[in-house]
This record gives sequence, C-alpha cells and structure tokens, in this order.
Amino acid sequence: MLGATFMGVKLGILGLGTVGTGTVKLLQDKNGRHPLLQDIEIYRVGVRSLDKPRDVQLPEGVITTDLEGIVNDPEIDIVVELMGGLEPARTLILKAIANGKHIVTANKAAISRFGAEIFTAANQAGVYVMLEASVGGGIPVIQPLKQSLSVNQISAVTGIVNGTTNYILTRMQTEGSDFADVLADAQKLGYAEADPTADVDGWDAGDKIAILASLGFGGRINREQVYCEGIRQVSKTDIAYASKLGFVIKLLAIAQNVKNGHRDNSLLSVRVHPTLVPQTHPLASINGVYNAILVEGEPIGQVMFFGPGAGEGATASAVSADILNLVANLKTNHAHLNPTLACRHQHYSEIAPISELVTRFYTRFLTEDHPGVIGQLGTCFGKHGVSLESVVQTGFHGQLAEIVVVTHDVREGDFRQALAEIAAMPAINSIPSIFRVL
Amino acid sequence: MLGATFMGVKLGILGLGTVGTGTVKLLQDKNGRHPLLQDIEIYRVGVRSLDKPRDVQLPEGVITTDLEGIVNDPEIDIVVELMGGLEPARTLILKAIANGKHIVTANKAAISRFGAEIFTAANQAGVYVMLEASVGGGIPVIQPLKQSLSVNQISAVTGIVNGTTNYILTRMQTEGSDFADVLADAQKLGYAEADPTADVDGWDAGDKIAILASLGFGGRINREQVYCEGIRQVSKTDIAYASKLGFVIKLLAIAQNVKNGHRDNSLLSVRVHPTLVPQTHPLASINGVYNAILVEGEPIGQVMFFGPGAGEGATASAVSADILNLVANLKTNHAHLNPTLACRHQHYSEIAPISELVTRFYTRFLTEDHPGVIGQLGTCFGKHGVSLESVVQTGFHGQLAEIVVVTHDVREGDFRQALAEIAAMPAINSIPSIFRVL
Ligand SMILES: NC(=O)c1ccc[n+]([C@@H]2O[C@H](COP(=O)([O-])OP(=O)(O)OC[C@H]3O[C@@H](n4cnc5c(N)ncnc54)[C@H](OP(=O)(O)O)[C@@H]3O)[C@@H](O)[C@H]2O)c1
Ligand SMILES: NC(=O)c1ccc[n+]([C@@H]2O[C@H](COP(=O)([O-])OP(=O)(O)OC[C@H]3O[C@@H](n4cnc5c(N)ncnc54)[C@H](OP(=O)(O)O)[C@@H]3O)[C@@H](O)[C@H]2O)c1
Repeated sequence: MLGATFMGVKLGILGLGTVGTGTVKLLQDKNGRHPLLQDIEIYRVGVRSLDKPRDVQLPEGVITTDLEGIVNDPEIDIVVELMGGLEPARTLILKAIANGKHIVTANKAAISRFGAEIFTAANQAGVYVMLEASVGGGIPVIQPLKQSLSVNQISAVTGIVNGTTNYILTRMQTEGSDFADVLADAQKLGYAEADPTADVDGWDAGDKIAILASLGFGGRINREQVYCEGIRQVSKTDIAYASKLGFVIKLLAIAQNVKNGHRDNSLLSVRVHPTLVPQTHPLASINGVYNAILVEGEPIGQVMFFGPGAGEGATASAVSADILNLVANLKTNHAHLNPTLACRHQHYSEIAPISELVTRFYTRFLTEDHPGVIGQLGTCFGKHGVSLESVVQTGFHGQLAEIVVVTHDVREGDFRQALAEIAAMPAINSIPSIFRVL
Repeated sequence: MLGATFMGVKLGILGLGTVGTGTVKLLQDKNGRHPLLQDIEIYRVGVRSLDKPRDVQLPEGVITTDLEGIVNDPEIDIVVELMGGLEPARTLILKAIANGKHIVTANKAAISRFGAEIFTAANQAGVYVMLEASVGGGIPVIQPLKQSLSVNQISAVTGIVNGTTNYILTRMQTEGSDFADVLADAQKLGYAEADPTADVDGWDAGDKIAILASLGFGGRINREQVYCEGIRQVSKTDIAYASKLGFVIKLLAIAQNVKNGHRDNSLLSVRVHPTLVPQTHPLASINGVYNAILVEGEPIGQVMFFGPGAGEGATASAVSADILNLVANLKTNHAHLNPTLACRHQHYSEIAPISELVTRFYTRFLTEDHPGVIGQLGTCFGKHGVSLESVVQTGFHGQLAEIVVVTHDVREGDFRQALAEIAAMPAINSIPSIFRVL
C-alpha cells in the first residue's frame, strides 16, 4: 500500500449493525464534511445475514457474507472492523494486516486483549491500526493522547467511559432510586442490555482504560491485570451519604502513575471502581449517557474531553475520523508510517497490585448500638496506620446503628487488614459498602 | 524542505517570554514525553534584549536579537513565532514561509487578521502553519477541528476562550461583587493586564472565535465582521437576577450556522458577547481561568474540550504538540502536504449581520412606578413581533421600579426597534442591561 500512487481509497467494512450503519450513512452524505471524504469508496460490507432489512442503500454486490473475501481482496485498502466480539474479529484483523491493509476498529474488547499481537503485526506489515471509536464514542481522545498530549509527562488518565453505568448512577442520584429498579427501567428503555454484565460489572470500562493507559503511558497493558469493580453494590443509601459529605458516586476508570513502594521506579495503577468524586471536580457533573476523559500531565495540567460515549452517529463520527486520517496520510504518499499515528508501545507496563494503591476510603458499617463502638473502630484503624478524616454516626437501621467513615490516604492493603479485624468484632454487624474516594 | 532526507529538525524560536520559556523548558526535558522530541534541536531563539535574565539555559550563540537572520537561516526547518503582536510578527512569518520554513504560532491576533495572507503564502510554498496554541491554551481543539471533527457537518462552535473575563465573571458570581472591584483585584493578582481592554472588551475572544470559525466551517473570516461586546456592562444585579432565572452569565464566543432570512443558503454568525447560559448547560460550570470549547455537529452531537486557557506550561504543551506533529509529518518524508493539516479554506464566509441574529434576550428596565408600565412594554414588544417568556417586576431602586424581561426567540433587529420605542416612553427611566440568552 505505502508508496503507491493515490487513486482514492476502497473500504471493506466488516459489520453493518449500529456503528456500521451510522458510518455508511455518514460516508454516503458527504455534503458539508471534509472534502477528502470524496476520495472514499464503500467497496464491500460484510454481514452475517443477507436477509436482514438494512437502514442504508448500497449498490448490488457490495453487501456480502464473505468476510474472508474482504480481508483478502487486493482491491481493498482499509478494513473497517465494526462487527465486535473477540473472534472472528481478531483473526480477520490479523489477516487483513498480513495482506497489507490498514485497520480501523471500534472493538475495545478485541484491542484490549489482542492489542499486543495486532500492533506487532501492524508494525511488521507497515500498516496503521486506528481505534478512535473504541473509547468514548465520538469524543476525540485517542488521537489527542497519541499526538497533542504526548508531549506531556502524563500522570493520570481518569474517565467516565461507560454510558450505561453513568446513566444508572445519575438516575439513582437524581431520583433517590435503588440500583435494581433503575437497571430494570434502563433495560426497558434500551439504555442497558438484556445481559448488563459487561457494563454493570465494569468490564467494558476495564477494556477502555486498558487502551487509554497504553496510549497515555506508552506501554502495553495486560488486560487481566486491570482491577474491575462494578456498580452493583452502590446503594441509594451510599449515594445520599456521599452527597451529604460533598461527593457524587461515579464509576471511574483510572490509569495513574504510582510510586513503587520505597523503590525509585514508578508503576501503573489501572483500575475501574465506583468512586466518591468531590462535587466540584470536573468529572462530577458528567451525567447521563455522556462520557468524559480527564488527562493530567506536566506541564499541561488538566484537560478534559466530554461528549456522547456511544450511539450510531457519535461512534460513526469517530470511525470516519480515523478513515479520514488514513486517507490523508495515504494521499501524502509517504514512505514510512507517521510515528505519531503508528502503534508505538513495545514493552508491557508494570502494573501495581490494587493492594499497593494509596487512596482515601469511604466505608459504611452497621453496628450494635453501644457507645464504645466508634472507639473500637478508631483503635483498630490506628493500629494499621489508617487515619480518619471524618466519622459520622448517621442513623439507625432497626436495632443497628449506621456509621460512615472517610479515611485519609492509606495503602489499600493496610486498610483491608484493618477492615478484616473490624469485621470480626462482636459489635460489628456488617460492612455493606466500601468505596474509594478521589 | 519536503522530500529532503530526514536528519532531525532545527527550530528557530521567535520570542522567549512566557510561552517561549515554557516551550524551551519542555523541549529541554524530554524524559517521559514522546520519543520523537529527541529529533528536535533548539537552534536559535530570537529576543529583543540580550541583557534580560532568562529562566532557561541555552548554549552560547543560540539567543540572538537578529530575528531576520532566523527566518532567513537555511539551517532552520521550523520557525516558532512566540513574540506576539501584529508586526514584525506578520512580516517575519511571511519571510519564513517564503524561505520554505514551516510555522508554529500562538499568535491569535496576527492569525485572525492576516490568516488569509499567511495561509495563501503557506500553500504556495508548500509549508504548514500550525496554531494549536492560539486558542484555548493547552486544550487540543484546533487539531480535532481540522481532523476528527471535520467529518461532521458542524452547526456551532461555542467557547469560553478568554480566561481573564471568565475569572472575573466567576468571582462576581460567587462573591456577589461588582465588575470594577473584581477587575482591580484581578489586576493586582496578575489575572488581568494593566490595560485590560483586549480581554475585557472581548477582542481577544473575537480573535479566537474568528480562528475557530474558519476551521469549523472551512471559510475565511473577515475579523472586522466579528461582533464583539465585552463584559464591562455586566453588573452584580444582573448576575443575581440571571441566577434566580436559572442562568449564569458567561462571555461566550460563538460561531454558528444561521438561516439567511427567507433565502435557502445559510450564513455564519460569528460573535462575542456576555450571554445568559442555562445552569445545566455544559459551559455553565466552566469557572475561573479555565476555557472550554463546545462543538456541535451532525452526527456527533455535542463534544466539549476543557482545560487551562493560558499559562506558560499549558501553552507550551500546545506549541510543542504542533512541533511534534510537524516533525512526525516531515519524518514520513512525504511529497505532498497532509491535507488535514494544511491550511484549507479558500473563500471568505458570508457573515450574518448581528441584526439578523435570532436569539432570546434578557433585558432589565428601570421604570416609573406606575401600574400600566408592564402593559405598555407588552404592547410595544407585541407590535414588533417580540413575545415574552417571562416578565418579573423584581424590586425598587429608590423611586424606580425594576422590571426584568426574557423574550422568546426574536430577530435582533426587530427587538432593537422595539427597545428604541420603549426607551422613548415617558414611563421608562433607563435600560441598564441587555444580554442575549443561549
Ligand atoms: N453501538 C455503539 O454505540 C458502540 C459504541 C462504541 C463502540 N462500539 C463497538 O462497535 C462494534 C460494533 O458494535 P455495534 O453496536 O454496531 O454491533 P451490532 O449492532 O451488533 O452489529 C454487528 C454487525 O456485525 C455483523 N457480524 C457480527 N458477527 C459477524 C460474523 N461472525 N460474521 C459476519 N458478520 C458478523 C452483524 O451482521 P448482521 O447484521 O448480519 O447480524 C452486524 O451487522 C463493537 O466492537 C462495539 O463494541 C459500539
Ligand atoms: N501567555 C500566555 O499564557 C499565552 C497563551 C496563549 C497564547 N499566547 C500568545 O503567545 C504569544 C507570546 O505570548 P507571551 O505571553 O509569551 O509574550 P511575552 O511574555 O511578552 O514574550 C514575548 C517575547 O517576544 C520577544 N519579542 C517581542 N517583540 C519582539 C521584537 N520586536 N523583536 C524581538 N523580540 C521580540 C520578547 O523579547 P524580550 O524577552 O527580549 O523582551 C519576549 O521574549 C502571543 O502571541 C500571545 O498572544 C500567550
């Protein structure tokens, strides 16, 4: 492909579902968009079933079920993978790369797991793998991380990157409703899937923060080392207490440089968990299905990107932006890949275990109602080096008292040890909620 | 330059003030940043005075007062213009371009006025003119507008792009203080210049929205056609009323497609004015010296970019990002300019006169205290097709009554005619405030 005379670009699109349809619609209506889109031809679109009604018109013969044929077709310059899932997506992407085709994909699941394999193959073949749509829907965040922001020493990338969970938490917050009720309603309204696990348990956000971490910090991420905790245990009670303390609860995906114990090097902490976010923090006011990604670095300080995290149109914008970028680079007819767009990370980043995280904690205890219990908690926390920012005896649950504690910064491992001891105390009935505080 | 073998890139920087110093600092500390920065050499830095103490160390002979020498030096690949002002910046940029050098600049004043001349020269010479730092400090917004977002049909670009005025308005809002007091204090604290005119009267924001408009809508903008109204007439009284009505007052810079009367084509409205922004709008919570730019388009919907709008480090990040981008493109050794980075607008956009704007208005009247006055207002507005969303008789100023009106959408010209008639009524003492409502 590289070095060839520029003759327009032929796309082979794999998948004509939500995102594929949006992309075809955008590319078929070129008026008012970048003129370079004129040079793009939708040459083949691969689907599973030829019988499904489609929301777009394509010339006879363009839609096919022969996806192998697409990735092997010498006419095709760019393969746009919008089918999702792990296989056959991975195999088709690798075949396309081996055939010298550039890749555009929205597939966070495949990239977060097979990125190392795919990027290595792409670098060998001298092709690009573009993935703007894999994180944050339409929000341009991948390209800024690769280019503009990469002159900074990045210290943290923190995102609200899953629209479904942000929608649920926002409704729980504004309506004072319970998780299960809001989830059921969100499923009815189409904001949550019938099987909500990937969203609600934080896996989707985990895929996305693995990708953001690898771009922000320039090392590959082992997806299995990303700590993922979902929002099932967030209750309306905790949202109400958090609110009184000046926080909102958000599912945050965080990649952050952390000190490696007493040693000199730094590790990467990459994690997803419900988090108490101060109400004045830029991420606190991101509501509903919107996504936002906050990047912190030196010397830039904080920059945040905000927008629709999913949906046909927004995601099609990101996919088309990648295609445009490729066409622009191919048109300049260069002999080498542009090093700010090519895949650059070689080594795996060393990931800090969650026990090494230093953070504040919010914890809610249900205790027997006797006066010594706060003292006992304090003594046990003190023994483990946990110092408390606030302790509030907040109310009664039947016979039980409710105590909410916010700690100062503490090593998570130490905090968990203290909690284990506390849980064993006779005065402690249960510990329904433990959340980290930003 | 194009087509040459890649041997690293030599910079000639014009200016070593706030932004120049930040840029040199960043480029001298390459650790943890994009590896491509290794290929950059700070070859010459032009200043006015050799005697000034500098915050950075540079080898003997690098700092010079011979700026002509820099733009004519055949060794130099990229001229980074960080001196500011109109001349000699314009002449030096044009000479550098004529000598085949690529340009990076932070100079919104020069670009918004001489952009057409500079871009035409750059296209003829086959060089890039990069200007990420000219709008929004460190926020990556120019590149997304040129690339990722350009696959959209953009309908509006709306920004808080002047940190000084946003700082002043934020303090007026939170402290309930008057403009003059906050301005004086901001000047003491270094958040406003001794001569605050460029910021306070909206000229700086006007420069920036002219640039954003030209990138978002792909046509050149005649800077003199940008309507600019500053914040001097915003009072704490209006901020308080706005707040009661559910708004905050922000200095917005807006570029927007508007219908051309009854004709079929659309015009561009490009303007800067204090604006009542609904408290729930994404721009309403951008406070202090921060900037944010909201881009709306089809099919993406709304995306917003947020971050520090000025300052040594943030602006240096944007300047260095442009340099990195150039180095990446030069390294690929292409035979043509990358069409998504090159200057692309040819024609001038047709700008709608402010009288053609259709918007809501907030207006505060001081009137004699007699019962018929609201009726008289209503009748006169009705005659000119102005319909009212809310009318509040809000209080008394000595002998005078105070009436605050919010209109429905109305053509500005019609509204101004109604106001002229109302101002002439005997019952009307004065009309201290007229603001547009988003
Ligand atoms: N939806 C969003 O808002 C969104 C946002 C960001 C990223 N993404 C990502 O974008 C990708 C696509 O998502 P989507 O929502 O568009 O999915 P979708 O609506 O389920 O569409 C999937 C498409 O791929 C085709 N396909 C799937 N497996 C196939 C196979 N084995 N052989 C042939 N065709 C196959 C389907 O064909 P048939 O039509 O014949 O069934 C369908 O056209 C996923 O990676 C997703 O994570 C989606
Ligand atoms: N400051 C910010 O936060 C910021 C943010 C965004 C964009 N910008 C833009 O960045 C540009 C630079 O701003 P700045 O704040 O860095 O300005 P600055 O601190 O005033 O620095 C200007 C520099 O240019 C040199 N210079 C000016 N005129 C010269 C001349 N005629 N001959 C030789 N040298 C000359 C000065 O030399 P001496 O040092 O010898 O006086 C000084 O080093 C401006 O276009 C500004 O609008 C600034």
